[in-house]
Amino acid sequence: MTETASRPVVTAFDWVPEFARGLVRDLRVRWALEELGRPYDSELLDARAPRPEEYLARQPFDQVPAFRDGDLNIFETGAILLYLGDRDARLLPAGGQARWDAVAWLFSALNSVEPVVQRIVHYDVFHKDKPWAPDAREASLGLCQKKLQRVNDALEGKDWLAGPFSVADIAMVTVLEILRHTELVAEYPALAAYKARGEARPAYKRALDAQYADFTPEPA
Amino acid sequence: MTETASRPVVTAFDWVPEFARGLVRDLRVRWALEELGRPYDSELLDARAPRPEEYLARQPFDQVPAFRDGDLNIFETGAILLYLGDRDARLLPAGGQARWDAVAWLFSALNSVEPVVQRIVHYDVFHKDKPWAPDAREASLGLCQKKLQRVNDALEGKDWLAGPFSVADIAMVTVLEILRHTELVAEYPALAAYKARGEARPAYKRALDAQYADFTPEPA
Repeated sequence: MTETASRPVVTAFDWVPEFARGLVRDLRVRWALEELGRPYDSELLDARAPRPEEYLARQPFDQVPAFRDGDLNIFETGAILLYLGDRDARLLPAGGQARWDAVAWLFSALNSVEPVVQRIVHYDVFHKDKPWAPDAREASLGLCQKKLQRVNDALEGKDWLAGPFSVADIAMVTVLEILRHTELVAEYPALAAYKARGEARPAYKRALDAQYADFTPEPA
Repeated sequence: MTETASRPVVTAFDWVPEFARGLVRDLRVRWALEELGRPYDSELLDARAPRPEEYLARQPFDQVPAFRDGDLNIFETGAILLYLGDRDARLLPAGGQARWDAVAWLFSALNSVEPVVQRIVHYDVFHKDKPWAPDAREASLGLCQKKLQRVNDALEGKDWLAGPFSVADIAMVTVLEILRHTELVAEYPALAAYKARGEARPAYKRALDAQYADFTPEPA
């Protein structure tokens, strides 16, 4: 019980620009912990200064979140979600087809859907004033829509991707939220309803509030 | 033992264009099975015809591979690799920090590195004649190089990402291979040596040979 009795630590930024608030990936880990009702501490990193060199030992890509639970250090949101799910069937069925369905959808969110979703953001947010951005966006849009359609179709008649709510849904709902500056998700009724269902969970709201509460005010 | 005694099935395409040979993702699963010395069957899909509607139940994104082991069906390469690793410490340490390091690097390969690597291919291969492609590529190149640098630095003094060889290396080496049409990996000595080390493994070579052997001749 020492492991579950300890308070896990999640790293997060002490500030991010407005467009990134609610999207930074520590939200995914906070959400999972809130679903479990497990208290945790956030360890805030100065977003406006370089991270100390030692941080790379915890998070080799110099990003958030890094996670600590007792003696264990884990990076990559997908791995942290899987770790938490491995320890609690409320986040991941313990075995058999149900487990592997959820694990497959967890990887889908992060490897099949998020990469094409991120491309849209890349053009719309980070390069929106570049003359080439509209053509480049157009060339990525079809693939993004195809993936959204596939997830939409898989959700028909289901509340969650893999039967019961799982870490796969935490990953997929937060991936879909990356498109909040567009109307793309709204084009797919089952997908839009699913996203709303996920974001209506009290644990999601608590996680979102906690991320926002950790941001210091904008610099003057 | 009934589970391990069965022959798993991996779906693959019966043909892909030259530029995709050796990159199709069934290779990752074949490689893992070859490391275990576990015989398997490939189930070939007609790449030049639409897949039957039923295939979506096995692979919701209509891609390869889908995987079957006894009664269990798994999609997403990352999930299949994790499944095989969960059952054999030669592919994934059974517990503790060593396990989670390997799982974290598995997710890194698929969520932190592959998405930026794929963008380069997107511009270089799928849109190479578009007038906007050079500018768009340039705008993605820095992030790709940064990720490669981070993996390179994490590999300094190590043979494999997470101590012993693991499914994380199968994922990362095959992700790096996606850049084979460029000199990008060669810019990072530890990374290039690591990729060569992975591709020198007999199991990799057997997997590659098996993928190629399943391709039917080009249409006349």
